[in-house]
Amino acid sequence: MNKYLENGNRVSLSELNLPEDLKKLSVNQCRYICNEIRGILINTVSKTGGHLSSNLGVVELTLAIHRTFNSPEDKIVWDVGHQAYVHKILTGRADKFRTLRKENGISGFPKPSESNHDIFISGHSSTSLSVACGISEAMRIQGKDNYTVAVIGDGAMTGGMVYEAMNNCSYNKSNMIVILNDNNMSISKSVGSLEKYLTTLRNSEKYIDTKRKVEKNLNQIPVVGNKVAKGVKQVKDAMKSTILERNLFEDMGFIYLGPVDGHNIKDIEQALRLAKSFHKPVFVHVKTVKGKGYLPAEKNPGEYHGISKFDIVTGNPEVSSGDSYSAVFGKELVSFAEKDERICAITAAMKYGTGLQYFGRKIPERLYDVGIAEQHAVTFAGGLASMGQIPVFAVYSTFLQRAYDQLLHDIAIGGLHLVLGIDRAGIVGEDGETHQGMFDVPMLTSIPNTVIYSPSSYDELRLCLKKAIYSEKGLVAVRYPRGSEEVSFNRSFISLDSIFIKNQNSDTLIISYGRIFNEAYKAQSLLLADGINCDLLKMTKIFPIPNKLINEIKAYKRVIFFEESTDNGSISEKVGCMLMESGYRGDYSRVSAKGFIKQSSVKSALEKYGFSCTEMADYICIRSMENGKT
Amino acid sequence: MNKYLENGNRVSLSELNLPEDLKKLSVNQCRYICNEIRGILINTVSKTGGHLSSNLGVVELTLAIHRTFNSPEDKIVWDVGHQAYVHKILTGRADKFRTLRKENGISGFPKPSESNHDIFISGHSSTSLSVACGISEAMRIQGKDNYTVAVIGDGAMTGGMVYEAMNNCSYNKSNMIVILNDNNMSISKSVGSLEKYLTTLRNSEKYIDTKRKVEKNLNQIPVVGNKVAKGVKQVKDAMKSTILERNLFEDMGFIYLGPVDGHNIKDIEQALRLAKSFHKPVFVHVKTVKGKGYLPAEKNPGEYHGISKFDIVTGNPEVSSGDSYSAVFGKELVSFAEKDERICAITAAMKYGTGLQYFGRKIPERLYDVGIAEQHAVTFAGGLASMGQIPVFAVYSTFLQRAYDQLLHDIAIGGLHLVLGIDRAGIVGEDGETHQGMFDVPMLTSIPNTVIYSPSSYDELRLCLKKAIYSEKGLVAVRYPRGSEEVSFNRSFISLDSIFIKNQNSDTLIISYGRIFNEAYKAQSLLLADGINCDLLKMTKIFPIPNKLINEIKAYKRVIFFEESTDNGSISEKVGCMLMESGYRGDYSRVSAKGFIKQSSVKSALEKYGFSCTEMADYICIRSMENGKT
Repeated sequence: MNKYLENGNRVSLSELNLPEDLKKLSVNQCRYICNEIRGILINTVSKTGGHLSSNLGVVELTLAIHRTFNSPEDKIVWDVGHQAYVHKILTGRADKFRTLRKENGISGFPKPSESNHDIFISGHSSTSLSVACGISEAMRIQGKDNYTVAVIGDGAMTGGMVYEAMNNCSYNKSNMIVILNDNNMSISKSVGSLEKYLTTLRNSEKYIDTKRKVEKNLNQIPVVGNKVAKGVKQVKDAMKSTILERNLFEDMGFIYLGPVDGHNIKDIEQALRLAKSFHKPVFVHVKTVKGKGYLPAEKNPGEYHGISKFDIVTGNPEVSSGDSYSAVFGKELVSFAEKDERICAITAAMKYGTGLQYFGRKIPERLYDVGIAEQHAVTFAGGLASMGQIPVFAVYSTFLQRAYDQLLHDIAIGGLHLVLGIDRAGIVGEDGETHQGMFDVPMLTSIPNTVIYSPSSYDELRLCLKKAIYSEKGLVAVRYPRGSEEVSFNRSFISLDSIFIKNQNSDTLIISYGRIFNEAYKAQSLLLADGINCDLLKMTKIFPIPNKLINEIKAYKRVIFFEESTDNGSISEKVGCMLMESGYRGDYSRVSAKGFIKQSSVKSALEKYGFSCTEMADYICIRSMENGKT
Repeated sequence: MNKYLENGNRVSLSELNLPEDLKKLSVNQCRYICNEIRGILINTVSKTGGHLSSNLGVVELTLAIHRTFNSPEDKIVWDVGHQAYVHKILTGRADKFRTLRKENGISGFPKPSESNHDIFISGHSSTSLSVACGISEAMRIQGKDNYTVAVIGDGAMTGGMVYEAMNNCSYNKSNMIVILNDNNMSISKSVGSLEKYLTTLRNSEKYIDTKRKVEKNLNQIPVVGNKVAKGVKQVKDAMKSTILERNLFEDMGFIYLGPVDGHNIKDIEQALRLAKSFHKPVFVHVKTVKGKGYLPAEKNPGEYHGISKFDIVTGNPEVSSGDSYSAVFGKELVSFAEKDERICAITAAMKYGTGLQYFGRKIPERLYDVGIAEQHAVTFAGGLASMGQIPVFAVYSTFLQRAYDQLLHDIAIGGLHLVLGIDRAGIVGEDGETHQGMFDVPMLTSIPNTVIYSPSSYDELRLCLKKAIYSEKGLVAVRYPRGSEEVSFNRSFISLDSIFIKNQNSDTLIISYGRIFNEAYKAQSLLLADGINCDLLKMTKIFPIPNKLINEIKAYKRVIFFEESTDNGSISEKVGCMLMESGYRGDYSRVSAKGFIKQSSVKSALEKYGFSCTEMADYICIRSMENGKT
């Protein structure tokens, strides 16, 4: 055994065989480790950006879990996965942790390809109970008796999948333990009746103790007299039959333990050991403080939820983004809504991320933060729309995937007017595969009668939003990228439709839209400087695609479409097919994204997929040479 | 006032001004009306097919609702909408009711375009609370004080959206009433802990009465003595603070009333009037008997859930379908699973509909009916797959839409092996817009690395399923239509890939797959008889599309693709684009479906959209003449 462990001395992660040695630490030694972990977290995230507050909050909890269970034989599932940094550090990835969220580095989410301690990919919320149900059931079939542990935040608890899974946990008779990491926050502040309910539990005496006491006392009440006796008996029966077993989680078939102080390792471990002993599905309610141990983060956990680089001493973010597509969207929406009572704004736990905080400040009575509940958000919007309101749902592209059926069935079939502000459309960068906004175009275009705008600048975003609210009908999406505008084109190109930017005698047409139109515009200039004349088609209303536009495109001998979207179901695929159907005889090619896009900076990914101006110019050059001047 | 109403005589629907006059009826007269409605239901559905049991169960409830509320000012939202037949009859559509589910007839679901009493389209489950939230909130903004009433079945209560909406009902302070139509059945038998919980409530004394009694008795317990006094005090406090307010629905912020006998109009109306008086969100728990009043349906509510025509006297379905794609799928899956413990079958409340009853009979321990919870179904499958099991999720195409994000995020990114048995792919007929299986192709093809098979016969389905389970990796779908096979092609054409069926010297190629390949094959013969030679390409593995196949297609001067799918994101769109990109210079055209497909027989819809052999032959003829022999 390690000499440091032996004498109860100060220990360091680098001296331990992880995660096995964690079990051998004294409580005092655990404190050293927790401090070390907090140091690593703050140090790394201050340089790489990432999810700080939630991870500072689960340091003791994660350590307790690894001391109580045997990973990877026991399966630990993190929900949402961005709270798994400590888990990564404790399972042998401390040395690589400085590469967090970098290209080819450690992922900001659990990733089975990274470590056998990472059980399931979880960038989207509320999946852990379903995953744990499946794992637990597989263990039953395979005759294994290991534990499955789902760690879920109270924010993730607002997603409907959790409830669907809870309803099915009776399958799992033996080995499933759910740890509710309750920090009273989802991403910013948690909302809804569940949160109110959790607060009641949080502030109550330890629930399990209360129940024991009540039960004991019930048996001590003497049953004497007549009327009183009957009364007491009735009370006792009512309590025993219905009340002693009542609790939201118990109603759904779980044993409930808690609440436990999530920063007291001994308390957590006691609860987890108790949970293991039941051999039934157990909910362990753990109270944690988001940002614990780093004052700036404790004070402003929302700000430190997903953060860019920051200065450790002052706590100030190094890069204050200032403006962004999100902020422009949020402010413009307020300007309409102030004059129009029909406009309602909806967010699924992303008030700040989507720029709706401005709406909240000015018109709180028409801002709806529904929790991490995209399905409900859309159908709730449908209810509003059916009454003549104009709902605007601001949502990240990747999270909108949760509401495909609701968009199709609850909005589009009835032709209800819903405006989608689709934020983080396209490549998002460091969050990697699980968060890329690459699928909203195929998803939305498959729904009949949908209209999609993809502005390339703030000014266009403002115009598109107005058009979407006041001139379009039915399901209308305005999609825009993460971050801020980088406009390189002449303001006179601003358009709500499609616009051609022409050179002389071009027989090649470049088509693009959205953020990367700006790169295409630069590529056009680069090529012109080399004596290669190309025309450029900028699409703003990208769907539906009018036949008239196809006819204009057909005038060119060569057409090249650059599209920051997954390839299947993309606009460039549709244009290709329409050209084919219309008998076009020129050369058509397109550059779009294939497969899932891994983590890296946005800039690096755009280059890699051929969406930077130089990559575009090169591609156009090669294409021209290959096919000659047809 | 109507003389019939005046003297309390027997009344008939045709004599009433609906729904207003319903309020004027005596309880006895209500009974006449209920009988009349049951007659209409049984008579009509025996001829048209449709949802019988659930509607027989809500006759009294619907009448009571229309006597207590003022539709359409008060908004009644039905969930799932197939229980709205009685509502349709009571809102002036009794005379048209015989056209139920027929082309241009009354829809089997609420349809705002049909009546202003139909508030929201609801063919898919679990949407009503979200819709009601939206309507209720719109009323608040608009200063209206009408009620919003959501009627939801206990089956629909298993969908996660309901929970997301419950979590948000605290927004609605005044006028939202949820009626839980609890018939202890979703579509067949309800499952899960929620159902267990409802059973407890169902079998308990009236909950609200119990609470009152307990409260009263608590106050009667004399606090005397020392230890005992302390004990009693503790019991009282515990009960008051936590217990008297505990109930799943109350925990989520609702007032709970019930359970109420759903076939006693007086009881229901009393509860609804009480509910109206609270001006807070209320849950009214109503117990109904599915199939009530028609013995064959009461005995076998599952069988009479969604039924074809049947004989009223014997109760026997007229058309016993015998075999079907669903049955072939279910039986074949059993044959694999009996030999392979890794295979697990999953259904979302559609055991019978998807043919998984055979699996349930033979291998119940590996069949999972998760309730109406497609999201959980997929991610649960992901958990199983992560442990090396082979999950097979059998699901209707239209309902799979609920799980787009789970397929993409929880299955595809991690490359987990999940087999989808997609039933009711393509046109489904009488259920209309909300149930058409037209979107699975664009949905699945947008997800990287997905594989899709679309067999044209039972034999092919069997082979595809085997291939999907044992030879493919990752996310693999096998999609097949509703109903039974109608094979017209030579068995030697059976293929797991693509196969050309050639005539001599053809310069035209017809492409198709799935059910309508059989029509294309007939069209080829029809044309041959007219001296027009066409070759035919039958695709079975429809995605991904190999470049090699595109090269073979390019050999033809004219290519025509018939595809029973929505057009945007379809295989024919992809083939069109690939041909364009590959420099094809021939004539390409395609016939696919645009917009939402309305209710009619499958046959009629196939014809209307150009998918019958004669329509195909005509189109090919015209296309050939238009473009000449290029």
